[in-house]
Amino acid sequence: MTTIALDAMGGDHAPEAEVAGAVLAARQFGVRVLLVGQQQAVKEELAQHSAGGLQLEIVHAPEVITMRDSPLQAYKRKKSSSVHVAAKLVRDGQADAFVSAGNTGAVMAVSHLTLGTLSAVDRPALAAPFPTTKGKVSVMIDVGANVDSKPVHLEQFAVMGEIYYRVIFGTRRPRVALLSIGEEEMKGNELTREAHNRLKKMPLNFVGNVEGRDVFAGDVDVIVCDGFIGNVALKISEGLVEYFTQTLRTALNKDLRTKMGALLSRPAFKGFKENLDYSEYGGAPLLGVRGVTVIGHGRSNANAVKNAVRVAAELARARVNEKIEAELAGSVAALRQTVAH
Amino acid sequence: MTTIALDAMGGDHAPEAEVAGAVLAARQFGVRVLLVGQQQAVKEELAQHSAGGLQLEIVHAPEVITMRDSPLQAYKRKKSSSVHVAAKLVRDGQADAFVSAGNTGAVMAVSHLTLGTLSAVDRPALAAPFPTTKGKVSVMIDVGANVDSKPVHLEQFAVMGEIYYRVIFGTRRPRVALLSIGEEEMKGNELTREAHNRLKKMPLNFVGNVEGRDVFAGDVDVIVCDGFIGNVALKISEGLVEYFTQTLRTALNKDLRTKMGALLSRPAFKGFKENLDYSEYGGAPLLGVRGVTVIGHGRSNANAVKNAVRVAAELARARVNEKIEAELAGSVAALRQTVAH
Repeated sequence: MTTIALDAMGGDHAPEAEVAGAVLAARQFGVRVLLVGQQQAVKEELAQHSAGGLQLEIVHAPEVITMRDSPLQAYKRKKSSSVHVAAKLVRDGQADAFVSAGNTGAVMAVSHLTLGTLSAVDRPALAAPFPTTKGKVSVMIDVGANVDSKPVHLEQFAVMGEIYYRVIFGTRRPRVALLSIGEEEMKGNELTREAHNRLKKMPLNFVGNVEGRDVFAGDVDVIVCDGFIGNVALKISEGLVEYFTQTLRTALNKDLRTKMGALLSRPAFKGFKENLDYSEYGGAPLLGVRGVTVIGHGRSNANAVKNAVRVAAELARARVNEKIEAELAGSVAALRQTVAH
Repeated sequence: MTTIALDAMGGDHAPEAEVAGAVLAARQFGVRVLLVGQQQAVKEELAQHSAGGLQLEIVHAPEVITMRDSPLQAYKRKKSSSVHVAAKLVRDGQADAFVSAGNTGAVMAVSHLTLGTLSAVDRPALAAPFPTTKGKVSVMIDVGANVDSKPVHLEQFAVMGEIYYRVIFGTRRPRVALLSIGEEEMKGNELTREAHNRLKKMPLNFVGNVEGRDVFAGDVDVIVCDGFIGNVALKISEGLVEYFTQTLRTALNKDLRTKMGALLSRPAFKGFKENLDYSEYGGAPLLGVRGVTVIGHGRSNANAVKNAVRVAAELARARVNEKIEAELAGSVAALRQTVAH
């Protein structure tokens, strides 16, 4: 049985959303969930649910990392936080994967430093799903684990993102693209020009550069970029969604006619919001660490937590890290051959 | 009288939108517009309007730059294009400013190479307005004129963007921010950390770092970044707006109820779209060239062209380049003093 260590104290709605999500996941996916957090708080929350027969256990962790903790301080000073304890359960083989909707920077730092990096990987990277007009998601990697990436890092992000996409979204040969500022190979900056050159020699379905406006078009599956760019892209999308929601709400509240219209349109808005709802996509995995770490949005509700647990279990069952090690080793071998001939 | 050289052949709806916009601008703002393009086509279009008494003249340019032309090829091989002829009118003092809604890369290249750079500026930068929830726009600079910027370039972008904001949006002391991936000074990449350090020593109202999600919040006026980042930010916003519009349309067309709702809500959607409508903001100036160049969106309609002409005239009348030269000289002097003490 796959065992997931869930940080019960992460996220804006912890431990309520975490415990509810764990109950849903244990029931629906048959996984075992270790709820890591302050025993009393988690226990009280769990008592609200009828969880008989489900594989749910509480692992005590006295400290809590908050949004105000800096990643490195959190790592160094809160060694018995729920994040640390959950990561150690994975490191020590007592859990197959680790899920948290807490402080993203801190979860990345603790996960990276506790679990270490796969031998074929220089830097772990965070992969985030984006909705598209075609319905299927595109995955952007890296959305903030690294800045000042080198071409070789982008090459590794491409391999890791491709494997994640294959495992979770079931596409046999995901289309991998490089985020740049023009479709032509020579467009972009020093980093993307060199990365483009490397990616086209890799045994990947590399389809070339895409621009920012293609991110939501759904014509590619994996979008590779440096973490500074990816983080700006992710945050600007979140900001624009907020702008949209707020502006539309104000406009619809203007007079009786538009209010009536809004009332009648409600199912449409609901469908629309669900489409944008990251909670369906199961959070963002930190790929390249020696273990499986999935980071949920801070605002995760029970459904988002449930889906993050699902993705973590699927990544663990698919032995995604073995695949990454093998493919990166293979790529390097393939590249060496290309150069030799 | 302020004279604007307008590329009548740029943009997806040229020369129709260009000529209509020129007529509106000449009437409304009392400017003289030189319509630069293929004489016969522009003449025929102009005949559709009652433009008696307005200062509108046609300047013939036989060649047209298309979206398929690469910037440098367009510059080298189409020397008698409307873009070249319009830029030369500015260079030779026959026009005060130049407006085009054509191929952005080509307009930037021709403008930069024909007009040259201000003596205090290393690299011209493109400044684009973004709508915000607070109503007022924020301006992002650079959105694509440069890649691989150095800290000194970001410093110059800040000064140019601040002056543009003051002149066009009438704020006495615009709040200048640096686009990064965290608010803390040490967050970001090598470029932003060093740029932050420099910006806080400048005689600007520098308010620190902002993240992608703050771009639409309206809490800052000028957002400084490298052109690769800015271009991704701009294009991703355009892509998300398209995604939004398309997804919402599909959702509202689902059944009779939502269709009725959509019909009643129409004024709200209209208001909402106007809020997002870049055509009100008058295009994006290329700041730092020896002259005034304003680049409109390829999809510019007559209203967008009119507003781009307005912004170009305002920038020329406010002697924005003299201000840039003076302030950059002053900043450098101020910085030297800081270092000396």
